[in-house]
Amino acid sequence: MKKAAAAVMALLIALPVQAAGLKDQVRAWRQGHEAAIVGELSDLTALRSVAADPAGLLATADHLEAQLKARGLTVKRLSTGEGKPPVIYGELLTKGAKRTVVFYAHYDGQPVTPSQWASDPFVPVMRTGILGPAATDVDWRKAPALNPEWRLYGRAVSDDKTSIVAALAALDALKASGRKPSINIKIFWEGQEEAGSTDLAAVIKANAALLKADLWLIGDAPVSQTRQMQLYFGARGTGSLEITVYGPLKPLHDGHYGNWVPNPAVMAAELIAQMRDSDGRILIPGFADGVRPLTPAEQAAIDALPPVEGDLKQQFGIGRSEGGQRLVDSLMRPALNIRGLRAGQVGDQAANAIPSEAVVSIDFRTVPGQAPVRPILEAWLKAKGWTLVDHDPTPAERTANPRLIRLAWEDGYPAWRTDMTLDASKAVIASTSRTVGKPVLILPMMGASVPMYLFADLTGAPVIGLPIVNHDNSQHAANENLRLQNLWDGIEVYAGLFADLNW
Amino acid sequence: MKKAAAAVMALLIALPVQAAGLKDQVRAWRQGHEAAIVGELSDLTALRSVAADPAGLLATADHLEAQLKARGLTVKRLSTGEGKPPVIYGELLTKGAKRTVVFYAHYDGQPVTPSQWASDPFVPVMRTGILGPAATDVDWRKAPALNPEWRLYGRAVSDDKTSIVAALAALDALKASGRKPSINIKIFWEGQEEAGSTDLAAVIKANAALLKADLWLIGDAPVSQTRQMQLYFGARGTGSLEITVYGPLKPLHDGHYGNWVPNPAVMAAELIAQMRDSDGRILIPGFADGVRPLTPAEQAAIDALPPVEGDLKQQFGIGRSEGGQRLVDSLMRPALNIRGLRAGQVGDQAANAIPSEAVVSIDFRTVPGQAPVRPILEAWLKAKGWTLVDHDPTPAERTANPRLIRLAWEDGYPAWRTDMTLDASKAVIASTSRTVGKPVLILPMMGASVPMYLFADLTGAPVIGLPIVNHDNSQHAANENLRLQNLWDGIEVYAGLFADLNW
Repeated sequence: MKKAAAAVMALLIALPVQAAGLKDQVRAWRQGHEAAIVGELSDLTALRSVAADPAGLLATADHLEAQLKARGLTVKRLSTGEGKPPVIYGELLTKGAKRTVVFYAHYDGQPVTPSQWASDPFVPVMRTGILGPAATDVDWRKAPALNPEWRLYGRAVSDDKTSIVAALAALDALKASGRKPSINIKIFWEGQEEAGSTDLAAVIKANAALLKADLWLIGDAPVSQTRQMQLYFGARGTGSLEITVYGPLKPLHDGHYGNWVPNPAVMAAELIAQMRDSDGRILIPGFADGVRPLTPAEQAAIDALPPVEGDLKQQFGIGRSEGGQRLVDSLMRPALNIRGLRAGQVGDQAANAIPSEAVVSIDFRTVPGQAPVRPILEAWLKAKGWTLVDHDPTPAERTANPRLIRLAWEDGYPAWRTDMTLDASKAVIASTSRTVGKPVLILPMMGASVPMYLFADLTGAPVIGLPIVNHDNSQHAANENLRLQNLWDGIEVYAGLFADLNW
Repeated sequence: MKKAAAAVMALLIALPVQAAGLKDQVRAWRQGHEAAIVGELSDLTALRSVAADPAGLLATADHLEAQLKARGLTVKRLSTGEGKPPVIYGELLTKGAKRTVVFYAHYDGQPVTPSQWASDPFVPVMRTGILGPAATDVDWRKAPALNPEWRLYGRAVSDDKTSIVAALAALDALKASGRKPSINIKIFWEGQEEAGSTDLAAVIKANAALLKADLWLIGDAPVSQTRQMQLYFGARGTGSLEITVYGPLKPLHDGHYGNWVPNPAVMAAELIAQMRDSDGRILIPGFADGVRPLTPAEQAAIDALPPVEGDLKQQFGIGRSEGGQRLVDSLMRPALNIRGLRAGQVGDQAANAIPSEAVVSIDFRTVPGQAPVRPILEAWLKAKGWTLVDHDPTPAERTANPRLIRLAWEDGYPAWRTDMTLDASKAVIASTSRTVGKPVLILPMMGASVPMYLFADLTGAPVIGLPIVNHDNSQHAANENLRLQNLWDGIEVYAGLFADLNW
């Protein structure tokens, strides 16, 4: 760490002694209840809380409502609309508490493609490690002890059901130790995050008084790749775009027509290469206009982060990185990711034909201050000679326009960074650092997107990300998993915040 | 037509009077036997002669053997190997005939994807026109007369089973009119063309004496888009390549890793854009080295071709052409066609992930004189910093190489152009022109590939392409079809060549 960075970090991280014995009590309680806690996580993971299964989402909401009630919280279901998964809101007010904190998590999971999973995504399986030749299934219910390196596999287990179970277990641990919370606790668990949180803003507006708070903590996303506890104070924004480029109405024999009939796969490739290079640089003029620079404190926090690049290259099987920067530096910039390409056929199915269309699926990651993507990109496409449509064009439209392109936008949401030097920020840094026994890592902005801007915009409260799950959890992919040690650590972090957060 | 072109064409096309009454006799015979001829084509099309169905190929060979024997030809099965579809060879020698001509066609068809077809590819269906709202199915067996604009749908019906049936019907017509062939007829029908004619060279070598001839005529490919009869004197060569570009071992969340983990879809797009632009120009240095220029006769033949571009743009729904040249001029150049692209997911399946690989399927069309593609492309890739492998790389190989690319080549075969000023060439031009009653169109080289080089190389005889089917036949795609008028015209062309070809 550079000297200047160290100085700034020292200002951020004050570490008075934690409430006496708190961590030891929580740990002892957890050690006596590991099977029950894992049982709670396994039961919750078995519930089919995915957008494709509305009944599964409602069953999960019912289950969570019961869990909070059983722990003495006042619970409300905040409606997001007829038949849609409600927000489960829980309240535990403590007499004399000066501050109120909302703990956010989502109980819905990403869609699943069961064929890609090693086992049913909704039948949780414990394995001795990360999926591979060395990992074997274990019957944890019969095991004399649980190895903290074991992992529980299932959809949504880490994203975010572990945050939910950690909070519940922390409440149990505090109750068992006879401790009162130092804050008013408000629980906010939504069921639409993986489907874009489309009703979140309306719910927050409709329940403004109920949700009044001094701070929101977001129990989503993973800890550092070094396995160290990390807080994030912002998140990149997101948005997506699907582009269709048109060739002939039907695929055509490329012997008879190649070199003359426009090949849409080539046009799509040319377009991608004009938008972005293989070092991650976005080549569209104006795309990064207005980007808000990092503050000295934010830069210092980044400079203080441990290196992860060498390990990740091995783990991911990559021989280079885009741009050659540190990972964290790369994530502070806007990104244009190609998430899918389709044209014609490959492999055994490949035919000597000019494809009739090419589809490019793009998602964007935006940063604070950045101008909106859509008008900049559309103006640039027009300047490049493209005619833009928002529908499947007719043959007449195709014939009339030399370069026709269909755009299907999903707007997403903007980026956000919370000021790390606020008293609330420093208090969260201090509490979590006390729990883990050393300064936590501080990420001014996460590369992934969480709608932090929305909580901040609508409530005016600071918003901080509180991740507890392992980074190698395969979230958003097949074989999502949770490493048990992360759950154990997470319970202590939540208990620390519940009972030892003050500012 | 330019004056100079007209002068050259006049030298090529001499039109003495056709053997008296031949065409009228053939036409009258055909008009009396239309249902039987279509029945023959339908029966042949119903046989499942595709590479995926070895038994279907053998059944087709048996059927053709019987058809030739029934017409008095001496038939041999030329083996291509155990269990593989044989070449069906038939011979009809005529006393006093000075010249011997081999008539080539293939009886196998392209693979099918039945879900893309409007009806079973192996249950031939007659429709009133090209598939669309205006076309209806007709029961041709019960129709009082067959409309020549009707089309018979089924796999391989036009590519090449119509050439086979036209030859059989022409033999019948000549026999009915009591005419003797003017040439020794040799029939050569192979069953491996759509699978690359892998054993063709061996068969020709093993049967050199049997196949001795003064000319090969290739009954493959379609006539001009103007529906006029056309001969082709060459064909572009072909070859294909599948490229796999590697990203991370597993798809990775692009929020957490985008801008840092290399995106293989972007690398693939960049690579395509470096290889070829959207105007069909190949950008790889040396790719077109050695290309043999067109002769004055070849250029004149091209200049004499009627324009087709306006109609095709309407038909194909395209608003421009690559490079803005005439179609035929574009086809005289080497081509690099992207026939397929795959990376990640698009549409509803799209996930915010960096794909683990991108696949680009390419086919090449080469022209005479051109240097071999493979060494040039591989040297260029290496110069661009790529490490080339021919296998699925290990994680260690992926980590060790910043830019790793897998190449899977299919070698294909070279291009060919037969001299249009040979006596044999002029005789074929004259015979077919006499049959159609006006000068046929002359294409010095077809854009599509037919292994003409192989017949020429191995036998030393001139090789000329003799297409009869409609250009809009959807060959190599779903709903392949044959317009009846093309079959009727084809019978007259074959009969003319059998009975009126002399040089």
